Amino acid sequence: MGKIILTGERPTGRLHLGHFIGSLKNRLLIQDNDDIEKFFVMIADTQALTDNADNVDKVKNNIIQVALDNLSIGLNPNKVKIFIQSQVPQLSEITCYFMNLVTVSRLYRNPTTKDEIHQRGFENRVPAGFLTYPVSQAADILGFNTDLVPVGDDQLPMIELAREIARTFNNTYGNVFKEPKALVPKQDVCARLPGIDGKLKMSKSAGNCIYLSDEPEVIKQKVMSAYTDPDHIKVSDPGKIEGNVVFSYLDAFVKEDSFKKYLNEYENLDELKAHYQRGGLGDVKVKLFLNNVLQELLEPFRNRRKEYEKDLDEIYRMLFKNGELARQEVSKNLERMKSAMGLDYEKFLIK
Amino acid sequence: MGKIILTGERPTGRLHLGHFIGSLKNRLLIQDNDDIEKFFVMIADTQALTDNADNVDKVKNNIIQVALDNLSIGLNPNKVKIFIQSQVPQLSEITCYFMNLVTVSRLYRNPTTKDEIHQRGFENRVPAGFLTYPVSQAADILGFNTDLVPVGDDQLPMIELAREIARTFNNTYGNVFKEPKALVPKQDVCARLPGIDGKLKMSKSAGNCIYLSDEPEVIKQKVMSAYTDPDHIKVSDPGKIEGNVVFSYLDAFVKEDSFKKYLNEYENLDELKAHYQRGGLGDVKVKLFLNNVLQELLEPFRNRRKEYEKDLDEIYRMLFKNGELARQEVSKNLERMKSAMGLDYEKFLIK
Repeated sequence: MGKIILTGERPTGRLHLGHFIGSLKNRLLIQDNDDIEKFFVMIADTQALTDNADNVDKVKNNIIQVALDNLSIGLNPNKVKIFIQSQVPQLSEITCYFMNLVTVSRLYRNPTTKDEIHQRGFENRVPAGFLTYPVSQAADILGFNTDLVPVGDDQLPMIELAREIARTFNNTYGNVFKEPKALVPKQDVCARLPGIDGKLKMSKSAGNCIYLSDEPEVIKQKVMSAYTDPDHIKVSDPGKIEGNVVFSYLDAFVKEDSFKKYLNEYENLDELKAHYQRGGLGDVKVKLFLNNVLQELLEPFRNRRKEYEKDLDEIYRMLFKNGELARQEVSKNLERMKSAMGLDYEKFLIK
Repeated sequence: MGKIILTGERPTGRLHLGHFIGSLKNRLLIQDNDDIEKFFVMIADTQALTDNADNVDKVKNNIIQVALDNLSIGLNPNKVKIFIQSQVPQLSEITCYFMNLVTVSRLYRNPTTKDEIHQRGFENRVPAGFLTYPVSQAADILGFNTDLVPVGDDQLPMIELAREIARTFNNTYGNVFKEPKALVPKQDVCARLPGIDGKLKMSKSAGNCIYLSDEPEVIKQKVMSAYTDPDHIKVSDPGKIEGNVVFSYLDAFVKEDSFKKYLNEYENLDELKAHYQRGGLGDVKVKLFLNNVLQELLEPFRNRRKEYEKDLDEIYRMLFKNGELARQEVSKNLERMKSAMGLDYEKFLIK
């Protein structure tokens, strides 16, 4: 039996380079793995509502964007089943049963939730659905009987909770769930891409993203405005690499042949960095190089996206069809779960 | 349009006289009301699991007991649809959406939940499902588009939360839900029956109940052992009425013709009480009278129960059939709800 994979994202905006490095790129590698039996990508609209209950439109309108973004990078819709979370109501049912296996204080101890509660300024007004969304996430993961969950490292506490719930369930009712494993992207250095403004994280609320669907001139404009080394004023000044967004991006995106193609006076990134550090290399030159690297990466994504955009109904139909597949998959596991719990009352009937 | 009624109980034990006075008796009055369009009685197994996650057998085995108890008092299965909560998974889906409309601190402020957390000794180990069960209860109530919820007064905070959620939902997404009203039994004096041991409440954990299904000799034995006035030692002593279980029960169960039938030396309860208070009336005489009153009440219940017990499969089939009815009812409202939220994505399709 091959592995079952589940991953996904909240549809609260178009996806950007940060998502690409943090998770999407990994999906491309995974889909070509022979060991994969089923690969689901969930557009987590229900989860997005936990802190957007009064902004359904945002969530709703971004479903198609997130679907297009996933397809645009080259995920193969025959291998990867993209679906909408709310179309699998069985996940809510599993969530409700799992809620009894976790304490409220355990949920408060989740470091990611803690951070997020702080970031969102909830203070004493944390929606119950927000505090408990890791339970719902565990239901997603276990509901698909998932082996591997490709995630960023901020999601590790969620996987840990899912593993705990699987153990508690199995101990209480009998062996039903596998303990899923997280699959974190290897290249640690790029696991989190900074924003173009130099902030720690690319995020749409900060307005510092390069989106996968950005047009060439937008990409260029963003690259040329990127944060570098504020003390690197004259070309001749020595420059810093650390905290320099342009070099962080190059670390993440430069390919073996990038220098040959766009900047053949250097052999590799180390040479370029050395020159920048000793002085004599201007920001503009490095930025133009980065621009070329990114344009090469993003052009096929944009073109593929435009193809898909020609028939949005077709995409919706695919999502709905995959929703049916997902329902079947989760129903199967829900049935095993309820049978282990003894909630399959039809068995009470003698005849 | 007639009214929609929803009520029910957790299947954690057979029902007793406390349930009869607190809620079941009211159901008999309601079922004969012409103004009622739909009347559902929910056996709340899912809710029972919120503090019995590791004791499913108790919950499971009491489903049939609670169904029989409800039928035994004379609820008409043609009018009153008894069903099992877990067979209506749509309620979980509604619960998950409602969880985003309530804060965690609001849930902690619920006085009934507070008491129950204390009673169960949860302290810092409150299951998330337990803290949030009032949200799931709101989903039950609003999911049926309920007008009236017959409950004991300890359930008023739950109805209040359901009303709040209805308002929040309607304000956020548009007018979908009615604000349900609680229907509390009128006779305040008997709204909560003490245990036979004189404790404030009849409860199975205290072992101080008279069950609706108790056999005649068991009823008599319990009545004869009931707590009266510990200072009423000799027949000639004056006795206290207050805190005297036998008189509390008489307050609740004596009928107009009870004295004529079983104790015709008194005109009514006031006379009996006066005699007891001035002295010269023994406990045994009053207890034998109470025994007669209760035997008269419970005999037809027990007989009806025995009839129903002859074909348990028939009862299960009725529960399952009513489950289907309940699913239809809730699905309809879930659809209205999701449509108001804009989660009916099928509409995105142009053709």
